Amino acid sequence: MVQAIVFDAYGTLFDVHSVEKKAEQLFPGNGREISERWRQKQIEYTFLRQLMGIYEPFSKVTTDSLRYTCKELELELGESDEQALRNEYLNLDVFQEAKGVLEGLNDYQRVIFSNGSRDMIEPLVSQSVISSLIHKIISVNDYKQYKPVPASYQSVLRNLNVKRDEVLFVSANGWDIIGASAFGFRTAWVNRKHLPLEELDVRPDIESADLSGVLRLLNHTD
Amino acid sequence: MVQAIVFDAYGTLFDVHSVEKKAEQLFPGNGREISERWRQKQIEYTFLRQLMGIYEPFSKVTTDSLRYTCKELELELGESDEQALRNEYLNLDVFQEAKGVLEGLNDYQRVIFSNGSRDMIEPLVSQSVISSLIHKIISVNDYKQYKPVPASYQSVLRNLNVKRDEVLFVSANGWDIIGASAFGFRTAWVNRKHLPLEELDVRPDIESADLSGVLRLLNHTD
Repeated sequence: MVQAIVFDAYGTLFDVHSVEKKAEQLFPGNGREISERWRQKQIEYTFLRQLMGIYEPFSKVTTDSLRYTCKELELELGESDEQALRNEYLNLDVFQEAKGVLEGLNDYQRVIFSNGSRDMIEPLVSQSVISSLIHKIISVNDYKQYKPVPASYQSVLRNLNVKRDEVLFVSANGWDIIGASAFGFRTAWVNRKHLPLEELDVRPDIESADLSGVLRLLNHTD
Repeated sequence: MVQAIVFDAYGTLFDVHSVEKKAEQLFPGNGREISERWRQKQIEYTFLRQLMGIYEPFSKVTTDSLRYTCKELELELGESDEQALRNEYLNLDVFQEAKGVLEGLNDYQRVIFSNGSRDMIEPLVSQSVISSLIHKIISVNDYKQYKPVPASYQSVLRNLNVKRDEVLFVSANGWDIIGASAFGFRTAWVNRKHLPLEELDVRPDIESADLSGVLRLLNHTD
């Protein structure tokens, strides 16, 4: 039986593409592309640092991936632009349905488990409308193991003192859902972009267009 | 002193985008995008399988990533289309300068070290114009460790009986070059697309627009 609902943060509860507005203001005509490439590169750098064994915290990875993105797009990123865009990550929009869904889960422990380092994820959550609805934040930076390696998901068990199948893990990132499913969590994939399931021979327990699918799953099965 | 020149295969000696022609023939108007997304997804799946500890050979990853790509682009991939596109990977074009550069390296052991499984990489090399210029093929599938994990580059040392700094590793893939440099190989990045260097705090020894940079490096330093 599910004891804890564990949410990914970026892309799942918080909209990383909220940065587009500021990016567009600083680099007119390029906001969308900066936002998309930055996010892609940020994820890629967590994968690569994990694979190569050269871990650095998400705050550094986020800056590095922004710098790469601007070089690739041939945009000159001044120090104040960089600071302004980094700051956007501390004030991302919460997805519209998130508050209501979290309120509906009041029988469960509600946890965030994020690649974000505490200097990024803690101010983001505490300044948001869902702050009081989250019991605990687990950062991969405490163990320096990025998702989706098994050692990373293992840190959730250690923190919450639960078994694998007592966790319902919720993420909008397909690779994160596959990693968590392969590890043995129950999983809900929030497929906001209506993407195909990754062809990695692992399936989530449910798929839903937004977070409300989590409520439906729990009403049916618990 | 350099003892062995170790080449990545896909993108470095062989042009993976040779598949575009057949893809365009099968799916008019989509050849370019299929080729690009397929390659991206293929690489991503090697990263993810390595991170998650769910290794499968490159031949399977190549099929899976093609299937994902077609689903994402909403193209119906029949069995014969799939077979035809897979077959293209056994007949990729050799980059124009490759043969001359390999001939110029006749004082060195010339090796291919590839993510490709032997069912893919061996027919590709043996049917190509550079077949007689390659002394040895090392496949990550012999050790089931995809690049860029250190254990993967380690298999090169075991196979060739050389030390890290006796290897000059040549790749067009930025992440592969960073992984090899972090491992301790000497590295030459063939930056065919004029991309920025990845922001991962590691630099290749040289960067060059095509393979001929390898000859220049060896003439200067050995």
